Amino acid sequence: MTHRAGPLVIIGGHEDKEGERQILKEVARHVQGAKLVVATVASHEPEGYFDAYRAGFEGLGVGELVELYVDTRADAQDEATLAILDDARGVFFSGGDQLRISSQIGDTPVERRIREIWRSGGVVAGTSAGASAVSDTMLVKGPSAESHRVGDVQMAPGMGLLRDVVVDQHFAERGRIGRLLGVVAESPRVLGIGIDEDTAAVIQGDAFTVIGSGAVYVVDAEGATHSNIAEAQPHSTLSIFDVRLHVLSQGDRFDLTRRRPLADPAPGAAET
Amino acid sequence: MTHRAGPLVIIGGHEDKEGERQILKEVARHVQGAKLVVATVASHEPEGYFDAYRAGFEGLGVGELVELYVDTRADAQDEATLAILDDARGVFFSGGDQLRISSQIGDTPVERRIREIWRSGGVVAGTSAGASAVSDTMLVKGPSAESHRVGDVQMAPGMGLLRDVVVDQHFAERGRIGRLLGVVAESPRVLGIGIDEDTAAVIQGDAFTVIGSGAVYVVDAEGATHSNIAEAQPHSTLSIFDVRLHVLSQGDRFDLTRRRPLADPAPGAAET
Repeated sequence: MTHRAGPLVIIGGHEDKEGERQILKEVARHVQGAKLVVATVASHEPEGYFDAYRAGFEGLGVGELVELYVDTRADAQDEATLAILDDARGVFFSGGDQLRISSQIGDTPVERRIREIWRSGGVVAGTSAGASAVSDTMLVKGPSAESHRVGDVQMAPGMGLLRDVVVDQHFAERGRIGRLLGVVAESPRVLGIGIDEDTAAVIQGDAFTVIGSGAVYVVDAEGATHSNIAEAQPHSTLSIFDVRLHVLSQGDRFDLTRRRPLADPAPGAAET
Repeated sequence: MTHRAGPLVIIGGHEDKEGERQILKEVARHVQGAKLVVATVASHEPEGYFDAYRAGFEGLGVGELVELYVDTRADAQDEATLAILDDARGVFFSGGDQLRISSQIGDTPVERRIREIWRSGGVVAGTSAGASAVSDTMLVKGPSAESHRVGDVQMAPGMGLLRDVVVDQHFAERGRIGRLLGVVAESPRVLGIGIDEDTAAVIQGDAFTVIGSGAVYVVDAEGATHSNIAEAQPHSTLSIFDVRLHVLSQGDRFDLTRRRPLADPAPGAAET
């Protein structure tokens, strides 16, 4: 048993399930032939999600693939539900509504068991809503495709596997930089991480590596010289100066402690 | 006659024409009761554009409002067309295709006359395609709502009233930060200016002030520490580190020479 927590694979949604499957391969690699649990709890209507992942993980070396669905908090206390996680070396949260993840399994035996799997070296992956839910504060709701209006973003406590960052997903596709700027303007201590579709940040220790076809944006307001977030009227348009923005693509790394990017040492090399 | 060029009012598209009309008021103010020419040349089918602006400028104190349409380059050489610009103290370029502006009036007597009006203190305004066309290099085409892929943005020479910047419009609404990052990654000397709908940068001298309901983004790659733009394969996803990003809203100013923002000295005060 390792004493180091396992990797987190934070995916921006719509990861490829039929072609190269680079991101699913990365998840499968960390499962090491053991059992992977697909948690469809974020969805109000989970039918079809698990089948899509069963097909997507086909042939990638996962020993056993099982579904975990929790309809109510009572289910998340149930021994039969907990048994699904026995011997699992990975949990993959599919998309839906991040509030369903936090409200249905937050602070339940199911969540504690998932944390134990991760702490003992297993992989936790999440896509779309599942990606948002891994951080300690998760972005729940806010307009896309417009600039941020003061007060228009909703946040809530998440699973807390990843500290001091707020994750947003479907990032370029839905034009979400405005709402992420709103988050970091409120709390410049927190790094904003925006992940495109079919793209993932693979976090190991204090750094992440980017894989997939899109980009990962890091929005850092630590050095911001001005924002109107505290004094502006509700719904006024955000103003913020001197935000540092990094755009990372395949192979680039980011040191979360030092808040610094590192370029891919071998651009164009084979996938990790 | 003043020896200083007039203001440029660069609008992100869809400016309000029925309510407060803040941006149209600003244009009208600079016309000083004289003649304003609405140039619908960017449109392939200009029907309706001029009527919308006739209604929009109603009651705002413009002395005379006339339409300038140029279907072919030959029209732009025509004395009758040129006469439309006589005594005008402002030209407003409506939306459409920025290449129609540059290709149909570029380097013609009509363009020279518009430049003279501006140089002698008249206002030149442009919305959407009209906004893009005022800079020396204009962004013509590139995907919205996705991260930039190397080589996927098309640019062309514009009217050159505004130097060393590239303007993009419908900015937050269409999720265009990716393509503007692509532009400044290619040429960090150039400032990227992204303007939301119903929002304008009013440029006077070496600075601009923001008016309207949205935001103006300034993307400055001068201090970028890395980009993959030169060595990456075509269509690979852009990677760029340490871009400086400013988000300006109503009343904020930006010094184009020093590349520095200045916060609204009186937030919440009456419109300019």
